[in-house]
Amino acid sequence: MAPRFTVTYFVQSANEAEAKARALDIALEQTVEVPRSTVPKGYVEDEILGRLESLEKDPGGRPGFLAVISYSEDDVGGDFPQFLNIVFGNSSIKPGLRVEDIGVSPGILGLCKGPRHGIAGLRTRAGIGERPLLMSAIKPVGLSTVALARLAHDFALGGMHYVKDDHGLVDQKTAPFIDRLKACVEAVGEANARSGGKASFVPNVTGPATAVIERAKQAQEAGAGAVMVAPALAGYDVVRTLAADPDFTLPIVSHPAFSGANVVSPDCGFSHRAFFGTLHRLMGADAVIYPNFGGRFGFTRAECLSIARACATDMGGPKAIVAAPGGGMTFDRVPEMREAYGNDIMYLIGGALLQESNLVDACRRLVAAVHT
Amino acid sequence: MAPRFTVTYFVQSANEAEAKARALDIALEQTVEVPRSTVPKGYVEDEILGRLESLEKDPGGRPGFLAVISYSEDDVGGDFPQFLNIVFGNSSIKPGLRVEDIGVSPGILGLCKGPRHGIAGLRTRAGIGERPLLMSAIKPVGLSTVALARLAHDFALGGMHYVKDDHGLVDQKTAPFIDRLKACVEAVGEANARSGGKASFVPNVTGPATAVIERAKQAQEAGAGAVMVAPALAGYDVVRTLAADPDFTLPIVSHPAFSGANVVSPDCGFSHRAFFGTLHRLMGADAVIYPNFGGRFGFTRAECLSIARACATDMGGPKAIVAAPGGGMTFDRVPEMREAYGNDIMYLIGGALLQESNLVDACRRLVAAVHT
Repeated sequence: MAPRFTVTYFVQSANEAEAKARALDIALEQTVEVPRSTVPKGYVEDEILGRLESLEKDPGGRPGFLAVISYSEDDVGGDFPQFLNIVFGNSSIKPGLRVEDIGVSPGILGLCKGPRHGIAGLRTRAGIGERPLLMSAIKPVGLSTVALARLAHDFALGGMHYVKDDHGLVDQKTAPFIDRLKACVEAVGEANARSGGKASFVPNVTGPATAVIERAKQAQEAGAGAVMVAPALAGYDVVRTLAADPDFTLPIVSHPAFSGANVVSPDCGFSHRAFFGTLHRLMGADAVIYPNFGGRFGFTRAECLSIARACATDMGGPKAIVAAPGGGMTFDRVPEMREAYGNDIMYLIGGALLQESNLVDACRRLVAAVHT
Repeated sequence: MAPRFTVTYFVQSANEAEAKARALDIALEQTVEVPRSTVPKGYVEDEILGRLESLEKDPGGRPGFLAVISYSEDDVGGDFPQFLNIVFGNSSIKPGLRVEDIGVSPGILGLCKGPRHGIAGLRTRAGIGERPLLMSAIKPVGLSTVALARLAHDFALGGMHYVKDDHGLVDQKTAPFIDRLKACVEAVGEANARSGGKASFVPNVTGPATAVIERAKQAQEAGAGAVMVAPALAGYDVVRTLAADPDFTLPIVSHPAFSGANVVSPDCGFSHRAFFGTLHRLMGADAVIYPNFGGRFGFTRAECLSIARACATDMGGPKAIVAAPGGGMTFDRVPEMREAYGNDIMYLIGGALLQESNLVDACRRLVAAVHT
């Protein structure tokens, strides 16, 4: 028998009998996808068929049960998309089911080596000891390469550790990928030379299926300090592939674009911690961007902190990564965020800085506030 | 000014003022993602910034409004993931927003050539005139290559036009991809030789990021009749890339695994027609699998028929594709499905056939029922 990994599902249901029936359906749907009576005896039934390990009333008081189902590593076949498919492929289409937690096994940790750098590597690159990281974004789409590079320069001069592309910047004619990459790496380098800092430029390499890996390698060659990928747009396995590629050495920042439906409804998708924490860490993201509580998105403080905890908890292999909450962050949120997240955080702030008349000064004030 | 495409959003809101504010937020969030006061004058504001074209109370009576927002083709940059990002990237994370419809423009149709074959090509390959198509799936995972090939043979001999891999079959050791592909193509060929039929084998090429395109080409070389991809797992642009690849000529069947959260909640994600119809057609899927009404998933009859209509409606370019409803189909559903879908349908039936003692006879009875 192969080792088994587990998935904990929230199963909306009126009573235990209904919950058990639904949980057994998940075990069937996610593996053999045939009527129970036709599951072949022997290997298929004993090894491949999902196994209901436990069922308990939801401790959080939601109207349903938590079902833990185990799956065989044999079913994964060394294939990360197939791992995701077993976790929630067809069952994602059934209302009232949600992935709460994923319990990994040795084979899953072998397939998903996790991030190459993690929060420690991102800090080392920035040269900031154990303090919080800061990241900002050049934008908007439509500005010229020159204008975007000037922003990158000023963010870096102001002390931001990572300066990323807006996730909407791809290869538009106003600032083509390669031109922007080179100009921004150079601009950040100039700022570093003036300030003595170690800021990194982080291009968005999300793009056509045939371009993502190539752009990531171009970024490395050009002297970028990390790359950003939106896995829900580019494909989840692209991040894992890059993180495991022996010829690629940069950290990976993930962006949540297009992934919202996976987390915003309480009745479907994933728990915040399972999606932005566990899955992104298994994929190999070093920093995971998600919308902070109290901003212009709807995540609660508890949901956000559950992500941060899942980024750091001992998974038996993958390095701890850094939570990068963003989306509507302002200066006056710093005390509240320090209190909530502590030092293991990457502050992502963009729009609020762009509203200031002197961008470099605004960045310096922010860095001072965060590092005090 | 570049041509503009439109997205119609359902915006949950108590009144028109709130709906308008939310709609203007979408226009900002999906394009420039900076505070309105900092949007650069000129090109960025006039061209790139999303534009609210209309706002009306939801005609379906839901508590909110329909907002039509237009976006510039310049923002897309010839990049399909960026098109998806503009349609719903960050806004996907805001509760109470849903993509209802997408209105394409010349540049989007240039980027997304759509399916190579469509329903007409799938019918020609099967040699069945204007009649409904039938597809079945070999499964479960865990069976040997020999056992799966035997199933493929019997489905083909029984008259199924397309015999696909279960979407959980990847490269597991019990039936490695290449072995299974070759054995099943051969088995279906033998059945065709016996029956005089034109059945096609459809391998699942969903897999690691670096393997999908390669497996699709191996499938073509081995004599498969189409390939299956789950775009939510493999990446949406993989389908578009394959459909546009001059060296690839097979039809593409899409599978809905892992996409459920995009449609199951009425408060987030996409309408069924926009996701499984419009988007899959733009991607270039020739047949789109989704859960049928009345089966073990929760789609309604109206939602399913809206998908079928979106597969066929005039989009000004992309060929009509075929709706392939599946998931719990049985013999006695045929009359109801004929009445609902008419002839432009691909019946996907698997588990119910596997419950029959004589698979070949069961397939023949089903084909007869569908083609009467």
